[in-house]
Amino acid sequence: MQAMLPKKFDPVHHLPPMSLDTYLLDRSKTVDAALNRFLPRATTKPATLHKAMRYSIFAGGKRMRPILTLAAAEACGGEIEDALYAACAVECVHTYSLIHDDLPCMDDDDFRRGRPTSHKVFGEGIAVLTGDALVTQAFDILAQAKETPRYKIRDYILELSGAAGSLYLIAGQVADLEAEGKKSTRSELRFIHEGKTAAMIVVSLRLGGMSANATPKAVLALTEFGKNLGLAFQVIDDILDITQTSEKLGKSAGKDVAAQKTTYPSLIGLKAARAEAKRLTSAAHKALDPIRKADRLHELADYLLNREY
Amino acid sequence: MQAMLPKKFDPVHHLPPMSLDTYLLDRSKTVDAALNRFLPRATTKPATLHKAMRYSIFAGGKRMRPILTLAAAEACGGEIEDALYAACAVECVHTYSLIHDDLPCMDDDDFRRGRPTSHKVFGEGIAVLTGDALVTQAFDILAQAKETPRYKIRDYILELSGAAGSLYLIAGQVADLEAEGKKSTRSELRFIHEGKTAAMIVVSLRLGGMSANATPKAVLALTEFGKNLGLAFQVIDDILDITQTSEKLGKSAGKDVAAQKTTYPSLIGLKAARAEAKRLTSAAHKALDPIRKADRLHELADYLLNREY
Repeated sequence: MQAMLPKKFDPVHHLPPMSLDTYLLDRSKTVDAALNRFLPRATTKPATLHKAMRYSIFAGGKRMRPILTLAAAEACGGEIEDALYAACAVECVHTYSLIHDDLPCMDDDDFRRGRPTSHKVFGEGIAVLTGDALVTQAFDILAQAKETPRYKIRDYILELSGAAGSLYLIAGQVADLEAEGKKSTRSELRFIHEGKTAAMIVVSLRLGGMSANATPKAVLALTEFGKNLGLAFQVIDDILDITQTSEKLGKSAGKDVAAQKTTYPSLIGLKAARAEAKRLTSAAHKALDPIRKADRLHELADYLLNREY
Repeated sequence: MQAMLPKKFDPVHHLPPMSLDTYLLDRSKTVDAALNRFLPRATTKPATLHKAMRYSIFAGGKRMRPILTLAAAEACGGEIEDALYAACAVECVHTYSLIHDDLPCMDDDDFRRGRPTSHKVFGEGIAVLTGDALVTQAFDILAQAKETPRYKIRDYILELSGAAGSLYLIAGQVADLEAEGKKSTRSELRFIHEGKTAAMIVVSLRLGGMSANATPKAVLALTEFGKNLGLAFQVIDDILDITQTSEKLGKSAGKDVAAQKTTYPSLIGLKAARAEAKRLTSAAHKALDPIRKADRLHELADYLLNREY
């Protein structure tokens, strides 16, 4: 009779929990390695296009959205590997939206993440096409994801097309564009923030949960968490645009004022805007109650929101 | 005992086959009605964006690609209803690529399908975002399609993301952009045509076949048909750009010469270009041999290629 083999030693479960710094570094490396695998090589024809895709994707972004995807998956008991498709897809969508948003006919930004923007390096035509290629790549990557008993490729794609489409992400960009030079109301501002920022953060978290076959209740909790986190993040971004220098931001500061855009600080004052950010932050933490292993998500929310604002 | 009911009278099977004109009119109406259902209403917030999406989608295009999708499905024994998702998806991708292609930073066209282009009516920023919204909508529509025993949503999405992505459609646009003002070789020209035109025609046909659960052999035949049809179509387009007036084309004529673009006629002469178009046309017809009910596809190829060139 064959002797029973001892259970395989699993060093991961014998290590103390990673510090947040280590976690962020580790997960962003994992995301970068996966993006490197998913994107065509820089030498693939047409080389200009693939070089431009990689220039913007590997421009030193914080990987906030894909890390939220991985953390949501982990919080729901899933594997990082299974969440990587969604993580890379949301990062491709995020990067494409920045490239198009920075174009001269939109926000007209020369710097992003501390480097010249895509159209400054490659020209406007290539920048438009690079954004187009990245959003298409996002759906390509997501369609390769693993299905779970509860969620199929159809569900993943509809999540992303919904959040990135004309009712959310692009709706926010349009409303933002149309808000230039005129005074917006608080509800108009909210519409912009929900579209431009919150929707993609929500879908990053939802797709992470879904890759882990999360219960509908857990996915709903991630949705509420993401909505409040996203809105808080945007309010803080608006505050930082006023209070920080371009050097510190890695992009042009004071753009909102220059474009005569209404922001929370300009609408309700800096102090009230800070209070609103705090309120949204608390609501974000509270929303995680139904999720048992939510420590890392709490920690990430603190990290993202406790910038000097 | 209940008397057996007579078989329900089915008028469709008692009618002679539709003329091509009736077929084109009928199928383009079917596609238009479906697009009308799939796209958000023009009043949906932000109204500018949804108005702009509809402005370009309902600009009087010939619906060539979606009709090929429906015809491919019918040729493979499928139902029109099942092919409509793919048909509308390819039309959204086609329209988005035209909007972006017409931008001042790309081909800089003021007219398309006889009407002012999107950026002339709505401004450049909105035109970029309208294209973005339409490509995203394409994946949304396609993800709602019916699966078949052989083909799943994953397969549909990967077909479209492949054809519309950085290796085909966008590759063609980039190569086209980079070819301006310099002499291209025949193989460079071929690369542009395969990407810009043939890839989307191929995927229109393939998705039609797949929606009908076509055999791999039939899908391969549709692929060969589409490749030759697409290349022939583009060669003829180049010829027409030289020989026709803007009024007749419904878009600016003589653009290729103005942009100093190499075309088949400029590379090998008008006569040889016409011979190449004929050769590709024959190859297209020949490719349909493995498909039994291919009459309508033959007829469509003749219709598309027998323009006055």
